[in-house]
Amino acid sequence: MKLSQLGEEGLLKLLTGRWRSGTGVRVGVGDDCAVLRSRSSGENLLFKTDAVVEKVHFTPATGRRLVGRKALARALSDIAAMGGEPWAALITIGVPAAANPADLRRVYAGLEALARRHKVRLVGGETVRAPVLFLSIALLGRMRTGAPVLRSTARAGDEIWVTGRLGASARGRHLLFEPRLAEGQWLARHGLARAMMDLSDGLGADLPRLAKASRLDFVLDEQAVPRAPGASIRAAINDGEDYELLLSVAPRDAARLRRLWPFRTRITRIGKLIVRDKARKKSLKKYGGYDHFKKR
Amino acid sequence: MKLSQLGEEGLLKLLTGRWRSGTGVRVGVGDDCAVLRSRSSGENLLFKTDAVVEKVHFTPATGRRLVGRKALARALSDIAAMGGEPWAALITIGVPAAANPADLRRVYAGLEALARRHKVRLVGGETVRAPVLFLSIALLGRMRTGAPVLRSTARAGDEIWVTGRLGASARGRHLLFEPRLAEGQWLARHGLARAMMDLSDGLGADLPRLAKASRLDFVLDEQAVPRAPGASIRAAINDGEDYELLLSVAPRDAARLRRLWPFRTRITRIGKLIVRDKARKKSLKKYGGYDHFKKR
Repeated sequence: MKLSQLGEEGLLKLLTGRWRSGTGVRVGVGDDCAVLRSRSSGENLLFKTDAVVEKVHFTPATGRRLVGRKALARALSDIAAMGGEPWAALITIGVPAAANPADLRRVYAGLEALARRHKVRLVGGETVRAPVLFLSIALLGRMRTGAPVLRSTARAGDEIWVTGRLGASARGRHLLFEPRLAEGQWLARHGLARAMMDLSDGLGADLPRLAKASRLDFVLDEQAVPRAPGASIRAAINDGEDYELLLSVAPRDAARLRRLWPFRTRITRIGKLIVRDKARKKSLKKYGGYDHFKKR
Repeated sequence: MKLSQLGEEGLLKLLTGRWRSGTGVRVGVGDDCAVLRSRSSGENLLFKTDAVVEKVHFTPATGRRLVGRKALARALSDIAAMGGEPWAALITIGVPAAANPADLRRVYAGLEALARRHKVRLVGGETVRAPVLFLSIALLGRMRTGAPVLRSTARAGDEIWVTGRLGASARGRHLLFEPRLAEGQWLARHGLARAMMDLSDGLGADLPRLAKASRLDFVLDEQAVPRAPGASIRAAINDGEDYELLLSVAPRDAARLRRLWPFRTRITRIGKLIVRDKARKKSLKKYGGYDHFKKR
């Protein structure tokens, strides 16, 4: 079996499919973050890594501050998707022999500015020689109040909601997005998100994941998907790197969500989760989204 | 300033020199692991990342199981160096387009076997496309009893001790070493190591780091350095990747250490930490060791 046939999910399944959660592990593989439970305090810790590689996630022409910013922002988005608050990060940088130290400082400056804004402690990491520039971020987060919001806890009948507008990543938003930390924390604190994840590979790839994790199917109201200025419905559904929150809301909570929502960021109802029906199974395959390994 | 002039420590200083520890951060940049203090329980968490890159840390001919094993073992060695026990790991793998999925499975199999042995929970990670195979390990650890042993807490007059025998890495030990977790935990639990670190870049590079972190100088008894079979004194001092523990022991504890030490791994006194004397400062420069970025 070749990598291009397996795709990203197939490869992940091959590599980590045997891993089982154990004592102290509340969530292992398959959600936005791992969730660990402290032996002594019962506190929930969120644990996440994310890597960006030159020529895959950014180009040699991308501003170096934006490279650092993006690397950290992606990991923060996963903490947001569980309603958590970030705590501390370790930064690993792969450095080509010809790299210019001043450029590397700029990468870190972009990262530091975002860390300050979201009160992430930068506590270490390392520099390694590599043939290509890459950054790998390891992030620890905590829950201020409430339990982390998982992907797998939606119920049939839940409404599907999304923050922001989709399809803007081609316009550079993938470098400048704000991780929805305040929104995610608010949703978790108010118990309004029954399930949640962040959109990194596009709604068309990620919504089926949320539905599958909850053993459900979905109906998407394509016309209702909030689109970034100039984005087609197709782009809003299929383009990756929106980094918005996708959530399921109990029907009885929808009015409360609308009434209490305190953010300027919009939040929109875009569909419904329904009981799985084998005959409808192909609807899950209808949408696209981004896959690192599959040829398109 | 070019990378090759800066060297690894210079680069790390350029990139992270401005980072300051904050609330909840007991140890930030500069020790084997970061140490975070839980708000609710006061528990000490150890946090570490380590990356290995093909053609830098292993060759294309290195057995794939050994690649995975080495990646995790290096990070475990840093947890050992603080006397901690590993808890959970996230694995990031950079995957070239031409990679063979069965080979990648072997990388994970090597890693899983070592994780099982040391009871590390594998809780997630990701696969990213990359022009070169790399693994980045993020590891969380805990202290079962006692406080983590730092590099910076040695005192003048302390004896310098080391576990195992040095200089064997060229013979393949860098792929097969056992992280000294049991030894490190025992030393921390018995309060016998006043300061500790693991030897990754060679005694000649790492001993000056421990001394510097503790604002001390050192006297090394070169003849006393325990050598692997066939290793010269020079190799034992300068070759990297021993992954043994280097520690400082209060003189009054030395007899107790010798008497109680329950492991087959040897432990040897190799020198002494002394008050810093500006006139002697060049002794710190006398020894070599491995630097990823400096040309040699």
